[in-house]
Amino acid sequence: MSDALGFPPTLEWCGTHLRLLDQTKLPGEETYLEIRSVADLCDAIRRLVVRGAPALGCAGAYGVILCYREACRCRGLPSDTFAYLTGMLADARPTAVNLRWAVERVRGVLEPFNAHPAETRESALEAEARAIHEEDKAMCAAIGRHGAELLPKDRATLMTHCNAGALATGGSGTALAVMYAAQAAGVKLHVYADETRPLLQGARLTAWELSRAGIDVTVICDNMAASVMRERKPDAVVVGADRIAANGDAANKIGTYGLAILAKHHGVPFYIAAPSSTFDLSLSSGAEIPIEQRARDEIAKPYGRASVPEGAQVYNPAFDVTPAELIAGLITERGVLMPPYEPSIRAVLGAGSKSNPK
Amino acid sequence: MSDALGFPPTLEWCGTHLRLLDQTKLPGEETYLEIRSVADLCDAIRRLVVRGAPALGCAGAYGVILCYREACRCRGLPSDTFAYLTGMLADARPTAVNLRWAVERVRGVLEPFNAHPAETRESALEAEARAIHEEDKAMCAAIGRHGAELLPKDRATLMTHCNAGALATGGSGTALAVMYAAQAAGVKLHVYADETRPLLQGARLTAWELSRAGIDVTVICDNMAASVMRERKPDAVVVGADRIAANGDAANKIGTYGLAILAKHHGVPFYIAAPSSTFDLSLSSGAEIPIEQRARDEIAKPYGRASVPEGAQVYNPAFDVTPAELIAGLITERGVLMPPYEPSIRAVLGAGSKSNPK
Repeated sequence: MSDALGFPPTLEWCGTHLRLLDQTKLPGEETYLEIRSVADLCDAIRRLVVRGAPALGCAGAYGVILCYREACRCRGLPSDTFAYLTGMLADARPTAVNLRWAVERVRGVLEPFNAHPAETRESALEAEARAIHEEDKAMCAAIGRHGAELLPKDRATLMTHCNAGALATGGSGTALAVMYAAQAAGVKLHVYADETRPLLQGARLTAWELSRAGIDVTVICDNMAASVMRERKPDAVVVGADRIAANGDAANKIGTYGLAILAKHHGVPFYIAAPSSTFDLSLSSGAEIPIEQRARDEIAKPYGRASVPEGAQVYNPAFDVTPAELIAGLITERGVLMPPYEPSIRAVLGAGSKSNPK
Repeated sequence: MSDALGFPPTLEWCGTHLRLLDQTKLPGEETYLEIRSVADLCDAIRRLVVRGAPALGCAGAYGVILCYREACRCRGLPSDTFAYLTGMLADARPTAVNLRWAVERVRGVLEPFNAHPAETRESALEAEARAIHEEDKAMCAAIGRHGAELLPKDRATLMTHCNAGALATGGSGTALAVMYAAQAAGVKLHVYADETRPLLQGARLTAWELSRAGIDVTVICDNMAASVMRERKPDAVVVGADRIAANGDAANKIGTYGLAILAKHHGVPFYIAAPSSTFDLSLSSGAEIPIEQRARDEIAKPYGRASVPEGAQVYNPAFDVTPAELIAGLITERGVLMPPYEPSIRAVLGAGSKSNPK
C-alpha cells in the first residue's frame, strides 16, 4: 500500500537482512539501516528507528529469522538461545502488544518442522513473517475502507495525534489509512496533526506522509488542539492504538487521553483505528496495560539543548490509556466496533479464539 | 519580592536605560540587555526577552521615559513624535492589556506639567513608572496571600502552565506568587509544570524559578497533563492571564483553555491569578480579545532544526481564551473573585472606575 502512496517502504525483508527507514531522521533525511543482528534490531526498536504497533509487529516477525540464525550459530543449546533471543525481541518495547504477538506467532510455526533441516525451518519462519507483513497491508486497506465510511462524503476536517500512518505499519497505516481511503474516494480533506511531544512524530512523520500524499495538513502544538476544536469544529478525531483491552480501553501515544476528553467536550467524535492484533483480550481493562517510561532527556534536551534546569524533575510516560466511554468507535479490519465494547469486541474477535486472534 | 526569592531582577530601571534579564537565554545563561531606545524595547518585547503581562506593564511604563527622550531630540513636533512612539510601544504585543494600560497611565501624568521644563516632565514620568513597578511588587505579594488561602495547609500538589512567576512580573509573580506564599506559610509543595510549547516557558522559566526557590517541580509535556490529573489528582491548577473580559473569560498562553477542560473533567479546581490591571472591562466577553498569531518557525524549527516538512502548514496562536464557566476563582490583589463573575468583577473593579482601574 505504501508504494501506491509514493512513500519509500517503512520496512523490507531483503533475504539477508531487514532494511528499515530510519524514522528518527525524518523529515530532514531519508536514510536506511540494514539490520543483521537481534541486538541491532532491539536497539533500533528502542530508539524508535521503527515504531508504531503494526510496524513493530512486522519488524518483530522478520526479527525471528535473525533470532533463529543466531541461535543456530551458538555453541550451547540452540533451542534455549532461540527462546532467549525471541523473548528479548518481544520485550524490546512493553506497551504495544503486536510486537509480542508477531514474535510468538512466527516462533510458533517451527514446531511441525522440528525434524527438518535448518534451511527448511528458516524458510517456514520467513514464509510466516512475510504472511504477517502481507496481512498487515490488507489490514490497513480494510481499516481505511471501513473508517472512510464514517466521514462526510465531500469534504472533511480531521484531527490526529502522533503517527498511525504508513510509517507505523507494513501498509498504508491505521488512522491515516482512513484518510488515504477517503481521499481516494474523492473527499477533500484538511487534517490537523498534533506535533506530539516529546519526539514530534506528528510534525515529523504524519505531516511528511500526508503532505507527500497531497492531503492538506496543518501542524499544531499539542496544547492548541482545544482551540482548533472550538474554532474549526473537526468532523472527527482519528488516532491509532498500541494495545486495546477487552473492555475497549485503548493505550496509545501520550496525549491521546487528553485529546479524547477535549473531543468529548466539543462534541467531536473520537475514533481509534487499529487491527485486531492490537486487542489483548487477556486484559479486562486498560488499568492492566503496562505503560513504558522513557528517558528524561527526550523532554529535557530537545535537539541537544537543555530546556529544563538541572534542579527540576521530569515525568515522561510514552503512552496513556483512553477509557472506552470516550471512544465513538473502534475501526478494525473486520469492521467498526461500536459501544458497548465488551460484547462487540467479544462478538467479532473473542469467540473461541486465542488472546490475539488473526 | 524577587530579591527575597534569590532571583536576579527581571527588569530594572537604571536612570539612563532599562536593564532586562534576557529570558530567551534561560535556563542556560543569565545575560542582560541594556535597552536605550524605543525600537530596541519593542524588539525585546516582540522577541520575548521580557514577557508576561505584568512585566510587560512595568517595561512599558519605563519605556515611556525612553519615548519622551527620543521625542525631545526630534526635529518635528515633539508631542506628535511622543504620541507616535508611545503608540508603537503600546502595540508591541496585542493580547496583554497591561502594556497599553501602563503606557497610557505614565503618558497621562505629563499633562499637568505642560508648562514645566523637560527635566521636570521626565522626572514625573519616571516617578509614575517607578510607582507602577512598586505597585506591581505589592500586587504580587497580595495575590500570593489571597491565593495561598485556597490551598491545603500541610502539603499540596499543584499544576501550572507557561510562566506566571517572578519572571513575568515586577515582583514575585501571579500564579507562582501563590506558590511562594504557600511555601512561606509552611506548605510542602509539588508542582507539575507544563513545558508549554512552542517556546517552553514552563520548562525554561517556571521550572528554573521554582527549583531555585526550593520548590519540588516536575516538568511534563503539555500532552501529559491529563494523565497527571488522573494519576496524581492535583489539589488545583493555578495559571496567570494576559487579559480578562468583564464576564470573566480569560486570555492566557495557548494551552490554558484545554487545561481548564481537563481540570473540569477530573474535578480539579482551576484558578486564574492576575492583577486588576489585567481586567479589560471594555470587553463584554473573551470573544473580543485579540489573539496574537506568531511565526511558523517557532513550531516548525525548534532550536533551528526543521521538525515540520516544507509541504505542511503551521497554525501558531500565542493565546487562547478560557470561558468563565471553567474558572473556579479569579485571584486578584483585591481578593479572590468567585462566580458569577460579571457582578463580582463589577463590584470589586468596575463601579464608576475607568476600564483599567488601579
